[in-house]
Amino acid sequence: MAKINFQDKFAKFSEHWTPKVIAEMNDYQFKLAKVKGEFVWHNHRDTDEVFIVIEGCLKIEFADKTIELNAGEMYVVPKGLQHKPYSDEECKILLVEPKGVVNTGEAEGELTASNDVWI
Amino acid sequence: MAKINFQDKFAKFSEHWTPKVIAEMNDYQFKLAKVKGEFVWHNHRDTDEVFIVIEGCLKIEFADKTIELNAGEMYVVPKGLQHKPYSDEECKILLVEPKGVVNTGEAEGELTASNDVWI
Repeated sequence: MAKINFQDKFAKFSEHWTPKVIAEMNDYQFKLAKVKGEFVWHNHRDTDEVFIVIEGCLKIEFADKTIELNAGEMYVVPKGLQHKPYSDEECKILLVEPKGVVNTGEAEGELTASNDVWI
Repeated sequence: MAKINFQDKFAKFSEHWTPKVIAEMNDYQFKLAKVKGEFVWHNHRDTDEVFIVIEGCLKIEFADKTIELNAGEMYVVPKGLQHKPYSDEECKILLVEPKGVVNTGEAEGELTASNDVWI
């Protein structure tokens, strides 16, 4: 395989809330996404989910608090926990989760993205 | 859990080639390491291994090539593949691998670090 450069990969797409797979490790995937505005409340019943901010600022709302992640910061959302990511300005993030995880979890709808889309 | 800031965590240790756990996702761990100089040839028989460079430049030598990773770049070393990381200057990296993986794989020795050390 070739090495992966995050900014080169980000240059390949512009839409928001549509994670793109850039690498697989065992049965886990690394995905890049550009996000802006409000996502939906959802959870992932069977898995934790890792958010790493590459550029910009991501907020994640939980029932009892809101966290703010800037570039160089990460957070592990525990499995089953309801959360809603949002971002005032465009933010570039790296997600790590098992292969097959759907972005909106159990909350299928308009923002549900196609899965396993590689760039 | 609290959010994790990579540079805050890097400020907590100075030794080289001793990965420190900063987060767990399911049965996987995220580890930070500072590296400088030569590591040992080794492989991980049962798992792929992800390297992400946070700061500096990491080289990874394989039997047939050497790759160079700079900040914002990642690489997946396939399971079982012999490799030797090295770095001319200090480099800060993020590793992702299953819980329990030993840094030197099958090549236990002087550079084998204690496992599951959290910061």
